Amino acid sequence: MAKALIIGAGGVASVAAHKCVQNSEVFTELCIASRTKSKCDALKEKLDGKGTLITTAQVDADDVNQLIALIEQEQPDIVINLALPYQDLTIMDACLATKTHYLDTANYEPKDEAKFEYKWQWAYRQKFEEAGITAILGSGFDPGVTGVFSAYAQKHYFDEIEYIDILDCNGGDHGYPFATNFNPEINIREVSAKGSYWENGEWIETEPMEIKREYHFDQVGEKDMYLLHHEELESLALNIKGIKRIRFFMTFGQSYLTHLKCLENVGMTSIEPIMFEGREIVPIQFLKAVLPDPSTLGPRTVGKTNIGCIYQGTKDGQPVNYYVYNVCDHQECYREVGSQAVSYTTGVPAMIGAMLVLNGTWAKPGVHNVEELDPDAFMEALNEWGLPWQEDFNPVLVD
Amino acid sequence: MAKALIIGAGGVASVAAHKCVQNSEVFTELCIASRTKSKCDALKEKLDGKGTLITTAQVDADDVNQLIALIEQEQPDIVINLALPYQDLTIMDACLATKTHYLDTANYEPKDEAKFEYKWQWAYRQKFEEAGITAILGSGFDPGVTGVFSAYAQKHYFDEIEYIDILDCNGGDHGYPFATNFNPEINIREVSAKGSYWENGEWIETEPMEIKREYHFDQVGEKDMYLLHHEELESLALNIKGIKRIRFFMTFGQSYLTHLKCLENVGMTSIEPIMFEGREIVPIQFLKAVLPDPSTLGPRTVGKTNIGCIYQGTKDGQPVNYYVYNVCDHQECYREVGSQAVSYTTGVPAMIGAMLVLNGTWAKPGVHNVEELDPDAFMEALNEWGLPWQEDFNPVLVD
Repeated sequence: MAKALIIGAGGVASVAAHKCVQNSEVFTELCIASRTKSKCDALKEKLDGKGTLITTAQVDADDVNQLIALIEQEQPDIVINLALPYQDLTIMDACLATKTHYLDTANYEPKDEAKFEYKWQWAYRQKFEEAGITAILGSGFDPGVTGVFSAYAQKHYFDEIEYIDILDCNGGDHGYPFATNFNPEINIREVSAKGSYWENGEWIETEPMEIKREYHFDQVGEKDMYLLHHEELESLALNIKGIKRIRFFMTFGQSYLTHLKCLENVGMTSIEPIMFEGREIVPIQFLKAVLPDPSTLGPRTVGKTNIGCIYQGTKDGQPVNYYVYNVCDHQECYREVGSQAVSYTTGVPAMIGAMLVLNGTWAKPGVHNVEELDPDAFMEALNEWGLPWQEDFNPVLVD
Repeated sequence: MAKALIIGAGGVASVAAHKCVQNSEVFTELCIASRTKSKCDALKEKLDGKGTLITTAQVDADDVNQLIALIEQEQPDIVINLALPYQDLTIMDACLATKTHYLDTANYEPKDEAKFEYKWQWAYRQKFEEAGITAILGSGFDPGVTGVFSAYAQKHYFDEIEYIDILDCNGGDHGYPFATNFNPEINIREVSAKGSYWENGEWIETEPMEIKREYHFDQVGEKDMYLLHHEELESLALNIKGIKRIRFFMTFGQSYLTHLKCLENVGMTSIEPIMFEGREIVPIQFLKAVLPDPSTLGPRTVGKTNIGCIYQGTKDGQPVNYYVYNVCDHQECYREVGSQAVSYTTGVPAMIGAMLVLNGTWAKPGVHNVEELDPDAFMEALNEWGLPWQEDFNPVLVD
């Protein structure tokens, strides 16, 4: 018997809304709000009549006052923020003002610098504690499930975790020579940034795509993967005590990387506007307009994702290796909720995290990364809600 | 004691104007006209005071009446057309109307189809004969010098030429990962078109870049080259009697081709407009705006071009192989005339062809491709005016 307000109406929001409606015993009411109300209405139309009472609203998530007015009007028990990462702080401010629980899937990022850091959101810890409300940061897959996996490994299998490698493999094929799975601007910013990993108490920076490994992924096969910075490295390095090294690898095909490099070389990925026929145009915005719309990739993407974590450490003085991962099929996701696996693997954990706050399991005043909370109920829910996980105590390690 | 009217003010026009001024005994007067008069004025400023009397004018070369008015006002002895290939016919019409000799470096091409054929210009043969004036088609390097080389080979070394391979190598390096040496739109259209060659009386079509060979070019080194269609194949196939096969190869680096392919794959080379922020934009036009301006490549391009022809045939019943080529240094050209070798190798033969018409050697009423005329004076002039050629009677053949 609870009401959630989802802010956002893109692929991830659509998956989360589908999952809330599937879970209508918990989510009896749902409001979907975004800058473009027609997108929310289209989503509502697909989901109406399945047990959850759905409303929609227009909101500019950059505007705290609009957000407060919306929350006061809709009276949700939790706000699920699936808008852009630029809007995390305004939405947190509105939750504080209205004493409403908060959950997101990606950390705040200022618009003018490609920096992924938790410091802005962690600064809200005391305010949320004092207000007696819960904020869950990064409850998607990575970050999100990767943190839950880590807490689960720590709780059940290790006295000490020394090494973590997070492996994010998308073995999907959309049939285009080049397309991005989500907003090309954010996608390309992530891939062209320098990499980094945590080792012996400090960050080691790498050139973009400098560190490459091959890995054979269950149900996907052999893939090239590259070390990237990824936001959960920052919180896991703090929250997994005694950790010696933590790295994040993502798979990219050679063709994807070649296209990206060429586009970068000619200046098409630049965020600096150029003059064209008398007005300023940002090259990457124009590139986005010629590329396939990520929302059209769903029906044509085949193959699977395989995302998980490999832990190395000790238990009772004995060395332990442990790999826990989820395999998700693009076409199955599409048939179920109308989105491919990249959106699915992010949207399902958002619903699960919100459910755990609403049913009290994760209701704990303050601002928390998921690995700070008890993982068991979340792990169970993953199996129940479409992201079953598998364990391997003898995994091939990444060198 | 003659006056030339140069139409155009780009890189090739600039080289031709420099060369006319160096040859001020023949070119006592010169008018430079283009759509943008300021470009002509800038060129005049560099060339004034060196013996040739220079004027400039504004003209829209798509407009026959404007061209006629300009020719009547300036009274040139010859019009050197270095404008776009779209404008060959309007300029020929104006020359007919005013009984003025005509010369160009690239054949007419309709704007709406990427077709390089002589039929439109050959249709003027009778009119030019009857008017008693000369039109020289394709007096650049290729077409141009390649035709003169062919006439020279035919005249001096062969009874019968059976095979011709034209090899166009640009070993220049401008230091950019990707840039085009001339108008990107025309450049990219040429490279992405199907290839073709003439064999046993018919055209054989190939996929774009389908046929690749390696060749070691004198003073440049080993390069990959690709079979393209090129306009002189059409006239040489007619004018070199008994020819069995004629092919054209151009060198491209792997990086250039990869960039081009990627840009093509994502749709950035398309000539179909897309909607962007409420108005139509043609992707290749936007691409042109992000790429380096070809006119800025001159000062930074180092290395050499090597363009020539390999002939195989017989003389007095004996087999003969003959390779004649020119090597041109980008930096030397830039120091001499402020343009790199790609413009230089086209602009110099334009001046030479015009000189031969003006001094009577090539003044023959009608419309002619260069290989139809006596090559000896042209060959001498190449050595004198900056494009010396070398001969090799034992060349490596292309398989």
